[in-house]
Amino acid sequence: MDYDKIHAVMGYLWSPLAAVSASWQGKDNAQIAVAIAAASIVPDRPRLIVQLYKTNLTHDLVVKSKSFAVNFLRKDQVELVHELGFSSGRDRDKLASIPYRAGPTRSPILKECLAYMDCRVVNAMDGGDMTAFLGEVVDGDTLSEAEPLFWHHLRTVMPQAWVQEWDTKIKREIEISRERMGKIRWGA
Amino acid sequence: MDYDKIHAVMGYLWSPLAAVSASWQGKDNAQIAVAIAAASIVPDRPRLIVQLYKTNLTHDLVVKSKSFAVNFLRKDQVELVHELGFSSGRDRDKLASIPYRAGPTRSPILKECLAYMDCRVVNAMDGGDMTAFLGEVVDGDTLSEAEPLFWHHLRTVMPQAWVQEWDTKIKREIEISRERMGKIRWGA
Repeated sequence: MDYDKIHAVMGYLWSPLAAVSASWQGKDNAQIAVAIAAASIVPDRPRLIVQLYKTNLTHDLVVKSKSFAVNFLRKDQVELVHELGFSSGRDRDKLASIPYRAGPTRSPILKECLAYMDCRVVNAMDGGDMTAFLGEVVDGDTLSEAEPLFWHHLRTVMPQAWVQEWDTKIKREIEISRERMGKIRWGA
Repeated sequence: MDYDKIHAVMGYLWSPLAAVSASWQGKDNAQIAVAIAAASIVPDRPRLIVQLYKTNLTHDLVVKSKSFAVNFLRKDQVELVHELGFSSGRDRDKLASIPYRAGPTRSPILKECLAYMDCRVVNAMDGGDMTAFLGEVVDGDTLSEAEPLFWHHLRTVMPQAWVQEWDTKIKREIEISRERMGKIRWGA
């Protein structure tokens, strides 16, 4: 499969950036995600499908708590991507300096963001390297009229040092995914 | 859950419109879908998650064939949405007047579209009213430099008669979904 042939259209299939958060037994964490899709046609019962990679601490907190919150970022919240998306909650308390509260599912709701949705997991699908969680939105609100933050914009405004840091990180993650994505437990 | 509070951001979580097609035992069909997400970080092993509603014939053809093709539409292919998205392949041969060929998975590849990806299903998740299929892209290409077709644009250019036809159709589907979305077989 020659990725160059579909690269441009694939760019339309990632969501705006969001901090996906979860909480389990007193441990709160959040990571950055770009694979979030609407998953309901019933307006008063909104659902999302959120893909989280298994290497991430947030993934494990979601599996345990069967809950997560999606906090979409404003176009200007570039710094927050560095804060939450470039390191692991296993190494440091990533939310230590970020104002948040617990939502109805106990998942962290960021006080500063574009919009949030607090979700209960109603199903999950193994992708080998990641899990796709189907979540029912139990609470949500829009906190700003700003535009959302997309990856293609972020990439143009990131400091050069972050670009290099990111490229190193994603290269390592691609190798882990390549190894694991074939090992899918069907219907799990 | 007050949908108005998250309506605007939810609008960013649908994909461009695509004709999702499948083939099983000589029966070819295609439907319109807007819930398609990228699902791999490994460039040479692209994957998609495509949500299809269980009432649709294409859904059943995908379940049987474990394959589907996603044909993203050009911004000008408004007529094709009416052709494929407003009626069921159970009632008529929707592809009768549309030029296509069989892809490697046998799924119909439209000769006229923005870009296509032919996929093998590697996992599936029950959503009650819909199934989310995780597909490995086995072949794909971009056929046009046009922009993709998004729902918000389509809605502004659709003839008034189609708007009414669509609203009637989606209203019925929302009621079916409302009834079924709670009945989820976990891990299926």
